[in-house]
Formats: sequence, C-alpha cells, structure tokens
Amino acid sequence: MYLNKEVSLNLNVRGLGQSATIAINEKSKALQAAGKVVYRLGLGQSPFPVPEPVVKALRHNAHQKDYLPAAGLQELRQAVARYHQKIDNIEFNPNNIIIGPGSKELMFILQLVYYGELIVPTPCWVSYVPQAKIIGKTVSLIHTKPEDKWRLTPELFDRHCHDQKDDFRPRILVLNYPGNPEGCSYNSDELADLAEVARKYKVILLSDEIYGQLHHEGAHTSVAKHYPEGTIISSGLSKWCGAGGWRLGTFAFPESLNWLMDKMTSIASETYTSVCAPIQYAAVRAFGNGMELENYLWHARRILKLLGKQCADKLNHAGVQTPDPVGAFYLFINFEQHRESLKKKNILDSPTLCERLLEETGVAMLPGEAFSRSPEELTARIAYVDFNGAKALSESEAIAKDQPLPDDFTSKHCANVIEAVERICEWVK
Amino acid sequence: MYLNKEVSLNLNVRGLGQSATIAINEKSKALQAAGKVVYRLGLGQSPFPVPEPVVKALRHNAHQKDYLPAAGLQELRQAVARYHQKIDNIEFNPNNIIIGPGSKELMFILQLVYYGELIVPTPCWVSYVPQAKIIGKTVSLIHTKPEDKWRLTPELFDRHCHDQKDDFRPRILVLNYPGNPEGCSYNSDELADLAEVARKYKVILLSDEIYGQLHHEGAHTSVAKHYPEGTIISSGLSKWCGAGGWRLGTFAFPESLNWLMDKMTSIASETYTSVCAPIQYAAVRAFGNGMELENYLWHARRILKLLGKQCADKLNHAGVQTPDPVGAFYLFINFEQHRESLKKKNILDSPTLCERLLEETGVAMLPGEAFSRSPEELTARIAYVDFNGAKALSESEAIAKDQPLPDDFTSKHCANVIEAVERICEWVK
Repeated sequence: MYLNKEVSLNLNVRGLGQSATIAINEKSKALQAAGKVVYRLGLGQSPFPVPEPVVKALRHNAHQKDYLPAAGLQELRQAVARYHQKIDNIEFNPNNIIIGPGSKELMFILQLVYYGELIVPTPCWVSYVPQAKIIGKTVSLIHTKPEDKWRLTPELFDRHCHDQKDDFRPRILVLNYPGNPEGCSYNSDELADLAEVARKYKVILLSDEIYGQLHHEGAHTSVAKHYPEGTIISSGLSKWCGAGGWRLGTFAFPESLNWLMDKMTSIASETYTSVCAPIQYAAVRAFGNGMELENYLWHARRILKLLGKQCADKLNHAGVQTPDPVGAFYLFINFEQHRESLKKKNILDSPTLCERLLEETGVAMLPGEAFSRSPEELTARIAYVDFNGAKALSESEAIAKDQPLPDDFTSKHCANVIEAVERICEWVK
Repeated sequence: MYLNKEVSLNLNVRGLGQSATIAINEKSKALQAAGKVVYRLGLGQSPFPVPEPVVKALRHNAHQKDYLPAAGLQELRQAVARYHQKIDNIEFNPNNIIIGPGSKELMFILQLVYYGELIVPTPCWVSYVPQAKIIGKTVSLIHTKPEDKWRLTPELFDRHCHDQKDDFRPRILVLNYPGNPEGCSYNSDELADLAEVARKYKVILLSDEIYGQLHHEGAHTSVAKHYPEGTIISSGLSKWCGAGGWRLGTFAFPESLNWLMDKMTSIASETYTSVCAPIQYAAVRAFGNGMELENYLWHARRILKLLGKQCADKLNHAGVQTPDPVGAFYLFINFEQHRESLKKKNILDSPTLCERLLEETGVAMLPGEAFSRSPEELTARIAYVDFNGAKALSESEAIAKDQPLPDDFTSKHCANVIEAVERICEWVK
C-alpha cells in the first residue's frame, strides 16, 4: 500500500515533471557526456561569472553560521532598498523587503498566501503556471501576439478583466520585462497604460524585473513608477550578477501590501527558515553596487546587445521570425513561415520541433509549449548564452568604451552561439 | 479591495505567526539591544562553529555559480550515501538522496507531494504541525507521557493506528531522535518494536535524525535498520556541523519510496530550484567526514553530555522534572510539581510561564504549547546553547581524552547556561 504511488500522491503533483528549463539542461549535459556536440541554448543561465568583489565578499563571510531573520539580514534589506532607490528611483522601506532563496521560491509562497487568481500573459517563464498547479490555484492566461512582439497590450489586459465580469475578483497579474522568453520590454508610456488598467480593476502587479539590469541600453523602467501602491517588484542576483546557483531573490512591497509580505515571512519561517547566511552577507556587497559592478554590467550589456541583434538578424533573414531583443539573453523564435516544409518532415508541434532540431543539429532550445503557448504553435526559445562570459568580458574591456564592438567580436568570442543560430537557419531551409 | 488583507489571504495562513523558535530569537535580541541581560535558551542553534575544514571548503568554492541539479550535486549525493553507510551502516543509492535548503523545507515538500495524513508524537518540533496547516493537511497527534520520557511507545502507536479503523489509510509518522524538545532517544530494541507497528499498519516513517551525530555517547542507531523499506532518513548540516544558517538538509530514500523523491524533485525544480552551489560543494567536505571532524564531534559530545546532565540534575533537584538527556542540546522541563505556587502567581499556562520567567529572570525559553502540548500543561523547552562553543571546544581539546571534564568546566565555559538554570530553580522556589 504505502509503497504504491498510485494511491498516495497528491493529485496536484501527479504528472508533474521537472521544470522544463532544468530538464533540458540535464538532457544536454547527458548528450555531451555521450560525446555529442551540443549547443546549449536551453537553460537561461547568465554566461558571465559572479563579479570578483562579490565572490571575495562570500569568501570573507564563509564562517557566518547563524540562522538569520526569516525576512532577511537587515543590512541586506537596507542595501536592496537603497538599490531600488538608486536604480529605479523608487523609495522602499527596508522593512518591506523580503529575501528568499531565489525569486522563484518567493513567487511560490506569494501564490500560497494569496487566495486570488493568477493572470499570466504568454509566452511566459516556465514556472509560474506549474507553481499554481502544485497549489491547486486558478490561473488564467492571456495569449499575446507575435505582431505585438509577444507583449501584453492594455487592450488585451482590459478585455480579459472585463470579460471576467467580477469587479471584486482578487487577481495578481505577472509582468516580466525585459521578458523571458522574448527579450522584449515596455517603455514608460506602455507601462503607464498597463498601470491604468491595473488600477481600474484593482489588480495587484507582480513585476518580475529580474532582467532589469540587463536591459541592453541600461534603460529599464519599473511599472511601480506608475502604480506604486499596487506593485511588488521581484528581483535577485541570478541574472545581472551571474549568480543563478547562489539562489538569492528579493521582493519589494509598497506599504499598502506589506500584509502579504508578513504572511510570506511566516511561511518562510516554517519552510526554508531564512536564506543561506554567507550568501546574504555577500549579497550586501552585490546590491551595494559601486564602480566595479557598474563596469561589469556595462560590458555585459554591450556584448549581449550585439549578440542578440546579430542572432535576430540571421534568424529573421532565414524566415524564422523574432522581434529584436532589447534586454536579457533570449529570443522567442517563430517557425510559422516554414510550417509547410516542416509538416513534410512530420513536425507538427513545438516539442517535436525542438527534439528534431536537437537530434539533427545539436542545438538545444526550449519549445514554445514550455512557455504556455499551444503546442501546435511552432515557436521556441533560444538563450544566447553558450559562450565563455569571463573571456568575453575581458575582451570587451580591452576595447574602448566609445568604440562599438567589431562585428566579428561574436564569431570570435561567442562562436557556439553564432554557429548554433547558423545551424538553425541552415536546417530550416 | 486589493489593499485589504481581510479578503485576500489564504484561509490556511490567516492567524499564522512566525515559527515560535525564530520569534523567540528575535524577541531575545530585541531585549538585549535594549540593554537587558538575556539568557538565550530559546533558539535551538548549535553553539559550535562550523568546523574549519568545512569553512575552508566554502571559501574555496565561493566562485561556483551554476544552477545545480534539483535533487543536488551528484558528488554530494554520493558523499551523503557514503556517510550513511559509514555512520549508520545502511546502504543508499546516491540517486535516492535529495539535497534541500534545510531539512525543514524537504519536510514541507514531502507533505506537499504525499496526500496521506501526518502522525506526530508530541512534544514535537515546532514546525511539523504549522507546515501541515499551511497546506491544509490532516495531522493527528499522539500525546506521549512524562513517565515515558516523552517518548512514543509501541503501545501508544499501535492503539492510535488501530483506533483509526482504516487499514489502508496512507500515513506518515514522524520520529525524531535524539529528540527536540526532550533530548531523549530510542535504543535499538525500542526502535525494533516501533518498526514492527509501522510495518503492521504500513505506515511510512519520516525518521528525523538531524541530532543523530549529537548523541552524547556517539551511540545513535537508525530505525531504518529495522524497517528499511518504509523509512526516510532526514538529516543535514545544521546541528552536528554547527551550520544552521547555511541551510542544507538531506533526505535518504529506500528504493521502494523513490517515487516520493521524484515528485519532491519536481517541486524543488519549481520552487527553490536547487540548493546554493557553493554550500553544496562545501558540504561534500562536511559529509566526507575524516579525522578532524570526528575530533570536533567527540569534543562537542563530551561538553554537551556534561552540561546536559548538570542542568537536568539541578532542575530535578528543584522539582522541575526532566528526564536525563542522551543527545542534542535540549531539556523539556516540567513545572507540574509547582502548579499550586505558580497558580498563586497567576501562572496557569505555559505561554504565561515563559513570559513571566523571561521578564523576571531574563531566561528565554519556549513554552510547551509551541511543541503541540496543551497550553495548560506547565512545560517548556530549554536549549542549553548560550555559550561560546569555539572557546569551549578548544578548552576541551586541552584536556586529555581519557580524562573526564572537571565538574567546574561548565561554570567556567558555559557560565550563562548554568546561571540561567540556577535562576529558574531559584525563581520556582
């Protein structure tokens, strides 16, 4: 009896696999271990190392052993508040900042404490929807369109809320920009329009700005500027600081929503307790920012901007459509123009598309289905991160800041990514 | 509307505070900051530092930045399997080991994936029951008796299962030994008897052995020896390795229950993703054990054994009853003999008892209620950890291993604990 999973699994987790991004990473590693050349454009991990001053801070704090407060080390909460002040020009009370073992975990416990519905525009990051499923929560999806660069428009958002015919419905909308999987963002006017709809329907915004600092022009703005009373800003070390494996995320709450944070802190104290102490002390240094980190970010952006644009150009030229990216390190690519020829190869959905492409070209990417798009839509995400970020940074540092990177910078220092994209273009012909 | 917590909180979390142990820690810190002398016997944190070779391993791995596999770094899973082989003489397949950000988080996701009921003998660790509440799970408590040293007897266990009149009921029993809050354990015969009942009713055992290595005689045995097919062993770095703030826990599954681990891994990948990479690399060193760590543990045990026995003797002598501890660093103390005199002071329940004791003597401890005992029962837990563990270890190292520690070792090197206990005895007179 007790050995029998058929009777003893929570229905919400039956059939649940591993997160799609993590699964592709493990599959790619296995193929590589078997001697195959694999272009690893699956997992969205920053190619850049953790900046040296931050690594040094971790070494310096390796002996820290105390359980820290559930909401986070006070010094770190202050540093995060100052960071939002400096970067976003938004004031937060340090007591309204919570530190978690990754912003993913914080999103999960937010979903646990909030009894309302989750609204997610798609294509969306792979974990929002499975999290809701695990808890048994209602999710409603708003499918955006390729012609809108896969971005949510105020019209779509308004229509969705209006059609629910339930003015008091408690709802959280997730907004992720620069976005995973499409690398696009919103400008300030667009954010103002979305904020207006949110205010009209009293929808809480979970503003996932984990890629904010990786806006290629350094021109990220937060929707909290337009809707401070209803916006929670999610961020963390994983992307701009290259420290995905460190697991540190942050949520910043307005005063008006701190009752949500309080309950999240209770859940934290009963689950993960608090975030790893040495990591929190090191993160104080990371959020403290300063010249060295600014410089690191400047070069990271310059490289990602050139590489993203070149990949998008090549793909668009081959009829694999993608909007030009403005941030992060992703492209959401669309094979619809090739539907007929793919059909002849018996490729009718995105999982098959990705499987066959991996087998036939060695390029690992994630199917549109993983981002909550219909499996029949022939879309996929590539993460243009398969290069030695430390090497690329030092090469960029050798080129004056007022000079553009030469066009062949990428074929020299991000060769795998360029090759992979060329393989996709070749394969689809 | 959306600003109003009254309508938007999940019912399961309404009224939920912070974990009692963490709350007392924060309260004690606040009193200290206000200049009061506080004896911190509230939070159950190891007084000993993280052993130097393990700290060194963290420094050495500070640059590790990759997302690791959701179930854990393979090298670490192997080290944990070897550790159980060496310490417990039990074979585990490394693929049946999962690494989490604390064993507390692993217990939570185990409760999430398993749809059956949780059975918990009380007094029990403070978080099992709130975790179940957050998820909306059924918990049933078995109240143990002071005359059984607060330990579960096979008779109580059998009667509980029998009385449920539901042979196919999926159930997990939590067994924690050496135990928090009472510092007692089970010998091999007692474990065999409990295992027999578990097998009879097909109950899964979650064997929480986080204090196993802190058995004062180094004589811990696991119930998995008697019931391998139905036992999950929970352990981690927090207690024996002094690394509570590092947040690393482990579960070891028998082959027959690895379907539970698989689903836990799925949840991990959608929530905390994986445990902090630098910490996992450092943990390989910790679980690798070796002479230096053996020596550290030997001295930690010698100190805890003497201190625990002296505290228990003093308290018992003052009519505050407690069984002699055999492991960990806790005593669960019983003021029932003083009920009449406490009643005159208007102390009728354990929360009031602890509050008044903190105010009147400066001794912080946790009320029996936090361990799921009836509030009217006049019990409390003390954690005899308020001393400088690094200093005490080096003092113990200066005394030959074949000599006992002198009786005044504790009043010299664990003065706060001794003083606190004397204050309790004085106060209760």
